[in-house]
Amino acid sequence: MIFGKVVGTVVASSRNDGLEGPRYLLVERTSQCGEKKGEFVVALDIIGAGYDELVLVTEGSPSRETPLTVNKPVDALIVGIVDQVDENDRVIYRK
Amino acid sequence: MIFGKVVGTVVASSRNDGLEGPRYLLVERTSQCGEKKGEFVVALDIIGAGYDELVLVTEGSPSRETPLTVNKPVDALIVGIVDQVDENDRVIYRK
Amino acid sequence: MIFGKVVGTVVASSRNDGLEGPRYLLVERTSQCGEKKGEFVVALDIIGAGYDELVLVTEGSPSRETPLTVNKPVDALIVGIVDQVDENDRVIYRK
Amino acid sequence: MIFGKVVGTVVASSRNDGLEGPRYLLVERTSQCGEKKGEFVVALDIIGAGYDELVLVTEGSPSRETPLTVNKPVDALIVGIVDQVDENDRVIYRK
Amino acid sequence: MIFGKVVGTVVASSRNDGLEGPRYLLVERTSQCGEKKGEFVVALDIIGAGYDELVLVTEGSPSRETPLTVNKPVDALIVGIVDQVDENDRVIYRK
Repeated sequence: MIFGKVVGTVVASSRNDGLEGPRYLLVERTSQCGEKKGEFVVALDIIGAGYDELVLVTEGSPSRETPLTVNKPVDALIVGIVDQVDENDRVIYRK
Repeated sequence: MIFGKVVGTVVASSRNDGLEGPRYLLVERTSQCGEKKGEFVVALDIIGAGYDELVLVTEGSPSRETPLTVNKPVDALIVGIVDQVDENDRVIYRK
Repeated sequence: MIFGKVVGTVVASSRNDGLEGPRYLLVERTSQCGEKKGEFVVALDIIGAGYDELVLVTEGSPSRETPLTVNKPVDALIVGIVDQVDENDRVIYRK
Repeated sequence: MIFGKVVGTVVASSRNDGLEGPRYLLVERTSQCGEKKGEFVVALDIIGAGYDELVLVTEGSPSRETPLTVNKPVDALIVGIVDQVDENDRVIYRK
Repeated sequence: MIFGKVVGTVVASSRNDGLEGPRYLLVERTSQCGEKKGEFVVALDIIGAGYDELVLVTEGSPSRETPLTVNKPVDALIVGIVDQVDENDRVIYRK
């Protein structure tokens, strides 16, 4: 999984992904501290992540492995909102 | 998913992908604003994306997860035509 | 899918891929015009692509999605021989 | 599989991965000698890897192929704790 | 598939991959001529590849598609020992 921050939303009208409810979010990749990297991915959000929240994004085929995304053409999924990251016994990020 | 613009078409006569109707489109990767990056991918189109439209492309195994592409050897699929992108509460792309 | 040109063959005697007939081809990645890039991949060929032909290669898990490659450990497959590529309403490649 | 060292932990409160017990660990990629590379991945740990241990990480879809992770949206999994690495008949890492 | 040479072995004691017999080998990526590139991957070996042999490695999900690796968390598998490589009608590698 990679770290990212929610920076926006993407609206697509002719989606053929078979998904009605979930939103596509614009996510900027970050370091484990939450520092933005200037690289972006569009990820599906099924947990209600909010603007500027640090999230974990699963990429590729495993994105389909939730009840809402099973058998859907999704290659990036927000799987968690990060509360805390520890590195070398030091808290480097806290929500 | 990644952003891209439809810039052309690819015709292949000896396809062994088991697909009759869908077209292969030449897609140039773009930023979330639609700025072209000079990188290209051939993606299958099953929604009728038109020339110069900004699209979302799903890569890898999830490309097979539509009724038309199930169990087909497709690794890039256009899953939506982008209407609007918001970043930091600002509209950065509108169709 | 990516573009490539067939530049050679690879013979492997102790294959455990469960494949008898198909050949491994040495494919050099190209631009959409057919310009070689100096990057190579070994792809399975089940359609009889010939030397110097421009082909479409599917990468990763979808390579298994043909009757001949189902449940085989193949991560690159030639899925079509390119006849023509159009970019910005101009023919940039013709077989 | 890639090499990495466990350098920290990641706590996410709104996980939708369907996983209760396993922990997300912060893993820094290393060479086969255990030299850190400054690149990080969040991997699921189901074997109890400890701080600073050299581990093998499986990436992508195969991460789901354990009894604990089957059908879960996990794209990186610690599959082993490295005891010894030999290169060119020389021991280059020993736990 | 990519080319690589077997340069070593990796022993991991707490493997949770469900595999008993097969070995993890340290493989250095090479060109099609067998020239080493300084990039390494840990691949599962189920065919008995020997030290310094040029092999073909399948990456990602297709690695699971053999009787021995089905449903295992393996993302790199040695699928063949290379006997000969031809490029532009010239033999560039022979075992």
